[in-house]
Amino acid sequence: MNENLSRWRVFILRLGHRPERDKRITTHVFLVARAFGAHGAFYSGQRDKKVEESVRKVVKLWGGPFTLEFVENWVGKIKQWKKNGGEIIHLTMYGLPLNETIQKIRESNRDKLVIVGGAKVPKIVYELADWNVSITLQPHSEVGALSVFLHELYMGRELTKEFKDAKVKIIPQARGKKVMKN
Amino acid sequence: MNENLSRWRVFILRLGHRPERDKRITTHVFLVARAFGAHGAFYSGQRDKKVEESVRKVVKLWGGPFTLEFVENWVGKIKQWKKNGGEIIHLTMYGLPLNETIQKIRESNRDKLVIVGGAKVPKIVYELADWNVSITLQPHSEVGALSVFLHELYMGRELTKEFKDAKVKIIPQARGKKVMKN
Repeated sequence: MNENLSRWRVFILRLGHRPERDKRITTHVFLVARAFGAHGAFYSGQRDKKVEESVRKVVKLWGGPFTLEFVENWVGKIKQWKKNGGEIIHLTMYGLPLNETIQKIRESNRDKLVIVGGAKVPKIVYELADWNVSITLQPHSEVGALSVFLHELYMGRELTKEFKDAKVKIIPQARGKKVMKN
Repeated sequence: MNENLSRWRVFILRLGHRPERDKRITTHVFLVARAFGAHGAFYSGQRDKKVEESVRKVVKLWGGPFTLEFVENWVGKIKQWKKNGGEIIHLTMYGLPLNETIQKIRESNRDKLVIVGGAKVPKIVYELADWNVSITLQPHSEVGALSVFLHELYMGRELTKEFKDAKVKIIPQARGKKVMKN
């Protein structure tokens, strides 16, 4: 399978990054975004060059395309996305269940901006979102929510996605590790 | 739906926890385990009462059952699990693809111990595992891998799981938050 999984594009917007506290969670959000087929990510809060660096290292070694960009004015970014014809999906435990929403989201032709919160998500996010979607009605993890959302959005096709310009590639094994180098 | 999603039980074993570095990732692993239908978790490495406390708080407020236990001798735990008739599933980017393995795992009657690694996973884990399973062949996150694995294992039924003795419960909303208190 090539890198085109669908007719729309998916980007992630990670809100309110705090370098000390969120470093690893935010990195996992971006790596999950890339591994599960998103085209890139934006983040707000505080800029964190260490997180950017570790994501770029993964893209360089394991392939892309996957872009990462800090945005100061995240409300502006959301509004611009909608103005350009895209739709906004906010993942929140308070939203409508995945199984009631995913098919409509999948079938719309609009590019998708998937918002995952940091600490407390401002009310305006719920209002600007076209879809507030819950992945279980339980508290757990933005990383878990994003991975299951993308997995359902792509209906599992992301699991065998091929990445461009990868320097290394895994050959699946029942036991042990096998890595092919290009 | 009641809390019995299946005829087998699922526990997680999180390896090599380091309190400073892994605090939030390990917490997310446990919260994902609970939210996606696992019955409990074990962890090795260094004991971390803060992580235990935050998971117990979630169980107390949002319901259970979900147990959490530190194990010193994790190799002993794995061997005992197998001796008791259970099977071992190790989530690793080097393993066999999810779609080639999940059906057999789902259909076996054996209780499942799902291992997620910390830093470097010792070779013995690959050898003791009945299944080394990859969730994409890309580097990403143990939190993402576990959530998609459990989601596929339960075929999405975990999304509407009811928890016992929950003090609060979310009523899904298209916009905003609605929480019911018991």
